Amino acid sequence: MIAVLCGGVGAAKFLDGALRAFDGEEVVAIANVADDEVMHGLHISPDIDTILYTLSGQVNPETGWGLAGESWRVMERLEKLGGQTWFHLGDLDLATHLYRSARLGEGATLTEVTAELAERYGLGVRLLPATDGDLRTIVSIRDNDGSVRDVTFQEYFVKLRHEPHVKAVSYRSAGVVTPAPEVMDALATARAIVFAPSNPVLSIAPILAIGEIAETVAKRRNDVVAVTPIVEGRAIKGPADRVLDSLGFESSALGVARFYADYSGTFVLDTRDSELAGKISSLDIRVRHTDTIMHDTATRTALAEFVRGVIEGV
Amino acid sequence: MIAVLCGGVGAAKFLDGALRAFDGEEVVAIANVADDEVMHGLHISPDIDTILYTLSGQVNPETGWGLAGESWRVMERLEKLGGQTWFHLGDLDLATHLYRSARLGEGATLTEVTAELAERYGLGVRLLPATDGDLRTIVSIRDNDGSVRDVTFQEYFVKLRHEPHVKAVSYRSAGVVTPAPEVMDALATARAIVFAPSNPVLSIAPILAIGEIAETVAKRRNDVVAVTPIVEGRAIKGPADRVLDSLGFESSALGVARFYADYSGTFVLDTRDSELAGKISSLDIRVRHTDTIMHDTATRTALAEFVRGVIEGV
Repeated sequence: MIAVLCGGVGAAKFLDGALRAFDGEEVVAIANVADDEVMHGLHISPDIDTILYTLSGQVNPETGWGLAGESWRVMERLEKLGGQTWFHLGDLDLATHLYRSARLGEGATLTEVTAELAERYGLGVRLLPATDGDLRTIVSIRDNDGSVRDVTFQEYFVKLRHEPHVKAVSYRSAGVVTPAPEVMDALATARAIVFAPSNPVLSIAPILAIGEIAETVAKRRNDVVAVTPIVEGRAIKGPADRVLDSLGFESSALGVARFYADYSGTFVLDTRDSELAGKISSLDIRVRHTDTIMHDTATRTALAEFVRGVIEGV
Repeated sequence: MIAVLCGGVGAAKFLDGALRAFDGEEVVAIANVADDEVMHGLHISPDIDTILYTLSGQVNPETGWGLAGESWRVMERLEKLGGQTWFHLGDLDLATHLYRSARLGEGATLTEVTAELAERYGLGVRLLPATDGDLRTIVSIRDNDGSVRDVTFQEYFVKLRHEPHVKAVSYRSAGVVTPAPEVMDALATARAIVFAPSNPVLSIAPILAIGEIAETVAKRRNDVVAVTPIVEGRAIKGPADRVLDSLGFESSALGVARFYADYSGTFVLDTRDSELAGKISSLDIRVRHTDTIMHDTATRTALAEFVRGVIEGV
């Protein structure tokens, strides 16, 4: 069994490849939930949903998130009513949030609801939220007038289109929440732990913000393989490069490797960034090179196959 | 100004007539909210919504509730996910619930949210929830095996299609909740208080279950006009007849008049039930006769015109 720490789009693509590459071996996806948001009374878990939709083949292929064939009847109407529509929820997508919110309201845990949804969507991986607790990523942004204020991840990412300068990132309740029940067992028994090519600061770090998880992953550093989400200094998707930069890490694969240095003993670097291998190695990190950009099923599978090879080699 | 105690469909039709009949005079609708339900994390106020949709001319004309031109994308999908769909929420209707739930989540009161929605829907009446508190109608039903259990109003009405025998009705938190801010003022200053032709036990009684409201209405008994929701022993809509019967009241306009005897000094009886006038009069209630069945705009307006005449005469 391998455990994969996951954010949204990049992780979902990697998991899709892993389902083929690790055929016959269990893949446990441990998903970031610090981006979750309660909107209109509904509990939304964007990273979990992106994984559900991608692995069930129902994702909108143009965006990499949301559902194919989506419609917007509810949001169009809500807009007419003057409601908040910056977090644009499709009609089909809403059903997932209604399902989740209803079950949570009945007292089910997020782990239980996620397992139910994973079954309904026919997922081939075991999908676990990192925690059932109320962990939240808070982004301190600098407004145009120079003042600093705290917003939730979704406000930063969606409402403000990840445009503001990020001054700091914190994980609310990180010291209070505990890992979801099956997470610690998965991390302890997996033959390898993979960091999917997700945003280090906004997707992987919130999972590692939970003390017990960080401790276990750090102890297993030798079995951890991180896949870079940054190629040639740019994030494949989203603001990972700018966020790393503004937090004082270099916006490069080297910056990512430094960010992960305590946790990950192996780093999968894109071949385009080979010149960084020396500096990463000097952090006591094994470097492996491959093409990490996933355009399609074949390249997703190839990357996961490569990671499997790295794991066998470690 | 007149104040109208309201349930859903019957009250909404009456209010529609009242808007024409009481032209130039303010109509304040005090709506039952004890049927409200939180489902899938969303706060649903069925009676308020029926009034919003009817008075804005957007109601589904075939059902008398819900919206015309409704679609069911979200519910169809939720059904596929195995979610609870017995309370069938249309896509357009959902926008109202999302709006309400978002605003309540931000700390707005139900009175404030209802006023906002009334404005958005362009309502000509002032629409007030009876209370901002968590008042709930609980129906004790007898199951087929003879056992008795408590369900919420919506479970009884929608999920169980008001088929089970009703053993008792109670109003949870009636002793705790207070009237919504503007309600007491409206009841104190209205030149008349009208009980719309709604279910006495399940729509009007929950409003009167709030002690302060009951007290004020009882004191103003002489200014209260109740319109019968029962004609020839049958409810125009819904289970009012059976519920009255199972609670020991006669399932007739006389049963309704008895139920309202402490509160309503005037009773609008359908002409088809004229033979009950004597018995109702003996309860110290003035009886007025007219055709109370509302088929269309003309008959709604005629009934409201008649009630206006009764008020002038009182």
